[in-house]
Amino acid sequence: MRITTILETHRHEDFAVGSVELAARTGAEIWHADAQLPYHYGQAAIEGQTWQVGSLQLEALLTPGHTEGSLSYLLRDAGGAPWIVFTGDVLFAGEVGRVDFLGMDRAPEMASQLYDAIFGKLLPLGDGVLVGPGHGAGSPCGSTIADRVWTSLGLERALNPRLQNIEREAFIAGAVRQLPKPPYFAAIERLNLEGAPILGGIPLPPLLSAADFAAQAATALVVDVRSEFAYSTAHVPGAQFLAADRLAVFGGWFMPVDRPLLLVADDNSPTAVMHILIRLGYDNVRGVLAGGMTSWNVGGRSVETLPLVPTQVLRRQLAEGKPAWLLDVRNEEELAHGRIEGAHLLPIRQLQGRESEVPRDIPVYVFCGSGTRATIAASWLQRQGWQNLHIVLGGFWAWDEG
Amino acid sequence: MRITTILETHRHEDFAVGSVELAARTGAEIWHADAQLPYHYGQAAIEGQTWQVGSLQLEALLTPGHTEGSLSYLLRDAGGAPWIVFTGDVLFAGEVGRVDFLGMDRAPEMASQLYDAIFGKLLPLGDGVLVGPGHGAGSPCGSTIADRVWTSLGLERALNPRLQNIEREAFIAGAVRQLPKPPYFAAIERLNLEGAPILGGIPLPPLLSAADFAAQAATALVVDVRSEFAYSTAHVPGAQFLAADRLAVFGGWFMPVDRPLLLVADDNSPTAVMHILIRLGYDNVRGVLAGGMTSWNVGGRSVETLPLVPTQVLRRQLAEGKPAWLLDVRNEEELAHGRIEGAHLLPIRQLQGRESEVPRDIPVYVFCGSGTRATIAASWLQRQGWQNLHIVLGGFWAWDEG
Amino acid sequence: MRITTILETHRHEDFAVGSVELAARTGAEIWHADAQLPYHYGQAAIEGQTWQVGSLQLEALLTPGHTEGSLSYLLRDAGGAPWIVFTGDVLFAGEVGRVDFLGMDRAPEMASQLYDAIFGKLLPLGDGVLVGPGHGAGSPCGSTIADRVWTSLGLERALNPRLQNIEREAFIAGAVRQLPKPPYFAAIERLNLEGAPILGGIPLPPLLSAADFAAQAATALVVDVRSEFAYSTAHVPGAQFLAADRLAVFGGWFMPVDRPLLLVADDNSPTAVMHILIRLGYDNVRGVLAGGMTSWNVGGRSVETLPLVPTQVLRRQLAEGKPAWLLDVRNEEELAHGRIEGAHLLPIRQLQGRESEVPRDIPVYVFCGSGTRATIAASWLQRQGWQNLHIVLGGFWAWDEG
Amino acid sequence: MRITTILETHRHEDFAVGSVELAARTGAEIWHADAQLPYHYGQAAIEGQTWQVGSLQLEALLTPGHTEGSLSYLLRDAGGAPWIVFTGDVLFAGEVGRVDFLGMDRAPEMASQLYDAIFGKLLPLGDGVLVGPGHGAGSPCGSTIADRVWTSLGLERALNPRLQNIEREAFIAGAVRQLPKPPYFAAIERLNLEGAPILGGIPLPPLLSAADFAAQAATALVVDVRSEFAYSTAHVPGAQFLAADRLAVFGGWFMPVDRPLLLVADDNSPTAVMHILIRLGYDNVRGVLAGGMTSWNVGGRSVETLPLVPTQVLRRQLAEGKPAWLLDVRNEEELAHGRIEGAHLLPIRQLQGRESEVPRDIPVYVFCGSGTRATIAASWLQRQGWQNLHIVLGGFWAWDEG
Repeated sequence: MRITTILETHRHEDFAVGSVELAARTGAEIWHADAQLPYHYGQAAIEGQTWQVGSLQLEALLTPGHTEGSLSYLLRDAGGAPWIVFTGDVLFAGEVGRVDFLGMDRAPEMASQLYDAIFGKLLPLGDGVLVGPGHGAGSPCGSTIADRVWTSLGLERALNPRLQNIEREAFIAGAVRQLPKPPYFAAIERLNLEGAPILGGIPLPPLLSAADFAAQAATALVVDVRSEFAYSTAHVPGAQFLAADRLAVFGGWFMPVDRPLLLVADDNSPTAVMHILIRLGYDNVRGVLAGGMTSWNVGGRSVETLPLVPTQVLRRQLAEGKPAWLLDVRNEEELAHGRIEGAHLLPIRQLQGRESEVPRDIPVYVFCGSGTRATIAASWLQRQGWQNLHIVLGGFWAWDEG
Repeated sequence: MRITTILETHRHEDFAVGSVELAARTGAEIWHADAQLPYHYGQAAIEGQTWQVGSLQLEALLTPGHTEGSLSYLLRDAGGAPWIVFTGDVLFAGEVGRVDFLGMDRAPEMASQLYDAIFGKLLPLGDGVLVGPGHGAGSPCGSTIADRVWTSLGLERALNPRLQNIEREAFIAGAVRQLPKPPYFAAIERLNLEGAPILGGIPLPPLLSAADFAAQAATALVVDVRSEFAYSTAHVPGAQFLAADRLAVFGGWFMPVDRPLLLVADDNSPTAVMHILIRLGYDNVRGVLAGGMTSWNVGGRSVETLPLVPTQVLRRQLAEGKPAWLLDVRNEEELAHGRIEGAHLLPIRQLQGRESEVPRDIPVYVFCGSGTRATIAASWLQRQGWQNLHIVLGGFWAWDEG
Repeated sequence: MRITTILETHRHEDFAVGSVELAARTGAEIWHADAQLPYHYGQAAIEGQTWQVGSLQLEALLTPGHTEGSLSYLLRDAGGAPWIVFTGDVLFAGEVGRVDFLGMDRAPEMASQLYDAIFGKLLPLGDGVLVGPGHGAGSPCGSTIADRVWTSLGLERALNPRLQNIEREAFIAGAVRQLPKPPYFAAIERLNLEGAPILGGIPLPPLLSAADFAAQAATALVVDVRSEFAYSTAHVPGAQFLAADRLAVFGGWFMPVDRPLLLVADDNSPTAVMHILIRLGYDNVRGVLAGGMTSWNVGGRSVETLPLVPTQVLRRQLAEGKPAWLLDVRNEEELAHGRIEGAHLLPIRQLQGRESEVPRDIPVYVFCGSGTRATIAASWLQRQGWQNLHIVLGGFWAWDEG
Repeated sequence: MRITTILETHRHEDFAVGSVELAARTGAEIWHADAQLPYHYGQAAIEGQTWQVGSLQLEALLTPGHTEGSLSYLLRDAGGAPWIVFTGDVLFAGEVGRVDFLGMDRAPEMASQLYDAIFGKLLPLGDGVLVGPGHGAGSPCGSTIADRVWTSLGLERALNPRLQNIEREAFIAGAVRQLPKPPYFAAIERLNLEGAPILGGIPLPPLLSAADFAAQAATALVVDVRSEFAYSTAHVPGAQFLAADRLAVFGGWFMPVDRPLLLVADDNSPTAVMHILIRLGYDNVRGVLAGGMTSWNVGGRSVETLPLVPTQVLRRQLAEGKPAWLLDVRNEEELAHGRIEGAHLLPIRQLQGRESEVPRDIPVYVFCGSGTRATIAASWLQRQGWQNLHIVLGGFWAWDEG
């Protein structure tokens, strides 16, 4: 096999697209959707354009709505029958693409275009046709994408809540809504127009001694990618917690795009973490703390903690009437699993901008499902000066067992 | 290259020798030292026996003292000149083998044999001859092995403190001393006589749900191989802490040989940890906590903590006259780096048997160099019922910086 | 995630099922289809039985035809809607399961059951439902499986040639055909009833010196898993060529199940090759040639060759009227790409049993698409005593370019 | 641990030094020997300069002779005693550094300096001191380095043939000799003065289709890094054979430094091969043949072969009096193992320049020890137009067994 052609469904907002790197590696051609944008690389594909791949054929379908020039790509089998349609951010499992990127005033117009794309172009391809969307559950590009990795047009027609609105007006009413837009989106949009620099591989940042690390921390943001348990016990003052396995999803919300980064990790060569940072557009990583937290600690440097409190302890304190403000950072949909009485919902992606709702003068107990997102959120609050913060160990699920 | 011959320097006490496994994989012959022992496999090598390896030759030298039948192996180059001598546990960098395995009453006799072996057989081979000992620094088979990985007979003659006693009596006086013998040695000695079972590869234990893990924990020992930071925050009640990178050195001291084990690790496939456990003779591992501590926590199960206290906090408490008992678990040699005033020295390997020296009614602050050994020791005390335990974050080195 | 349940669609004939190994590793329960068979492990699942997986549900559907008790498993989403059906060897992309395993006399009856299973149970689930079959293209369990990894019931209804026969009699006529059954199937069937031994990992066979290898080759079959280019130049006399990346597909046809194996490979630790051999039920591997063919060659041992001839050379010889018998070992379907005039078709899987069609007294030129299968086939003929064998370099595709 | 300091023993001629890359990764300082050269990076170290590494100390010793400003570095242990001396290319196991780099006219003067360095500075450090030389056996920087990886000053004093000349004049007479200097040395010398470009990782070249590869082969050198067996059967016309595991040693002799390269390999991502090429200063690799030789062959493109002939066949042909010219490309030292009667010795490193000794009109049979070097040499001859070339399978060792 050989990669000859790179087809983009739209100008991505949420990660640095690898097209330029892949083209450099393989010699492949890059074809863009969103032909209205001033790309610095590649060529614009057009509606109806086809590419032959052995005996198979791909065809571009203009399906605007999420962006002005989104394309879907239909793969036909050797006999010409529709087989799979790659829908980018137009149609997801259980969701349709968000339409608010050009502003809420243009959202109804975009939603109307989306209606035409889905009901006019995609669904008529036939129920059996498989769907390859651009995102799975958890993406900021759609609010409630279902955890259904493989799907078909028939399944979406039957099960996708947005597609139950088969009249245009109802569909538009359902599709128009404003979703949070993390700060790094603007930087990524620019990067994807210009083309990310060709790296050849994942660069590893310099290893810094604790002394050098401390000196650089004056101007850079320290990002701690260890487990929440390790972070809880002792972390570099001012460090933002972002567990390595959540970095891709939450990194863009809690790391400013214009500030250099420093990493605290479990090992000296955090390749996977660098991979994610680069895909998120953060390529200014100044260094890794050589030897990890132990290097920091044996130097007698000051640390911060963020205590993890078992639910048994929290219950006892509440029963004793001790002051406590419970902060639930789960998404609204998760409330269906249950809630802790008296807790204040403030979904993690809305924390920035609504942080003034969190009191500074009484103990705050932060929870999510298990504890990871709660630690990310509390870590950010700690950076903003909150002092009396606690994480509920095991989160809502642990509470629910009690 | 092909492995045809396995030469053992003595019957090892401290790890399960891989000879049987290697022989099964390669078809190599096994030759034993300590011919007086009733091995179930292999053949006994004798003084002066030689093996040809291409143009090189190996020769067995009888060098008793550490054990009754220890052999060293001299490698001669193609021209017959002595090149490297593999000394097993007879001669280390900066140390000689311990002579107390047959009891302290026989130690002087063994030390005398050791004198003959070293001064009569090894040193005469020539200063330039390289030495390949059986252990490096940190082994329980010699108390003060130097951190000098590569050495020669000339370097040992000049620098090894034990070899400065060139008279027999002085040498014996210096060599005879009783060293701690961890409980697993007896089991390993038996295993190495009988031959460890052939595994073919490193078996991974079953993954257990938190519920199954909790049920099995009633009869098994939970071993937590994560970092001390993660362990500190929350661990399964009764879990023995043994950081993965210290397990080989300290595992045998704090894990009973006759009790099944359960593992808490950072990932579900702790292959390296299993490798170490098997080499230490612990092959009865009942399972790994699937999903790690998060699985335990979301079930709302109770946890224990073992607080890590920054040196700044400890200093303040001492200055305020708060009750505190400082436990230094470093080795005696490390006192040369300095001490914390008022601290009680109880080297980690002597903890078992002397634990009654540690008070139960006042707060105990445990420290070592950085914090890892302190957490291992405190974890063991916690298992024995001590309750008011703290670890000094960054250990002596952090204190020394303050 | 945790694996709790193993569901089998039928008693497999073509590879050693890993259920027992997986159950040992995870504690999962094993549920069998083909309840009529005397399994030594696991339990029998029944039509309509359900398993809950978080919010999802799996349901067993009795879909006989390929075997008497084949089950399909329908995965329903959290709302109960059909999502994916795992069809085992009942329905493939572009093909249906073979029905000749119980003998050709019972094949029409089995095909009739298959008709009911597919038209009565599977297709009514809805066009949008995704299909997860037990095999992809190349499996001996269906003759013409399409190279369509992802599919849906709608796609199969529209595109699967067998399903175009919507009347029972026509379907049966299309489904009944006798397919080759490689000799190892019987051994695998027995192994899957009894349960393959638990290995814990992939065992590596002993490394043998060239002398030991040669001695063992008197009773064992030498299997050469290097490239056809390396094999062509020089191989151990009597060695069967089976390129590592074709071993899974063709190994069972050319290796007797009751004969120990010896391996010639590119490296001393052919783990991936051992993995495949064990899955095919060949667990009696006596050794690997340590150091590969170079070890053999430097010992001056005799070798065999199997020349690769460029198409330019072959054309010239044919033009000159030199005697040549062209043997095409491709499948019948591949004739659609074209043929070489005068070539005799004998698909590789039919070679055993029809080998007498190949002359012994004139030069034979064997070709397939590229050369790999041709070398496998010619290697087998060489083992049977054919002497004047050549491989067409680049195979039909190279010829077609000329 | 942290890398803070990079010490160079001399300006290397035979590989691109990684100092700049390592400094970029770690922030380490670079200290040069050969202070007389105009380096573009780093600083010049001087005789007697010391560096503290924890409790250990390194000291620079000026030991010219191989180059004008070669430094050795003496590592002292915590007590200040000499422990290991890193001798660069001044003193090897069994050999001293070559002194002909500045021309044979200056060689006696350089050898005299070398005498002072070794007898005046190094040997007086003591027999027990360990030696860490810059090269092991096989390096072009010394002709007969012994295969003795670990050594000491005492062993060298006793066993190194060059050091048996303890008088200056005899030493000089023994040390002065002209050794082959491969063409890439000049390019490497320049690169090491300027500093190799910082790569961050090993770049992989583009994958080329067979058609693109063929087009580029018009101007680039094709390098085939597969086994000699695979190369023998069929290779791209004009391809230079360089088995991956011999590339580091022989690449610089047979690849022009100013010509772009194309690779034929066993896989599409030959990372290890690229690593070696970059260390040898070949960073202009235009591409890898995607899919390997099979891609080439199925296109029906012409190939070249280079037959491997078993010794049995060769003996028979010689016995029958058939014309044959035997070319032995082993080193002179290897003649000690034996010779083939009538063979012409032309060591592989002298082939270029002496190729006119090889006849073009009678069959040439090339051999070395096993066959790999013979194939490299014959491949180069084939590129120069020789046509009747054969490789002796198993080489001298196979012949010797017959």
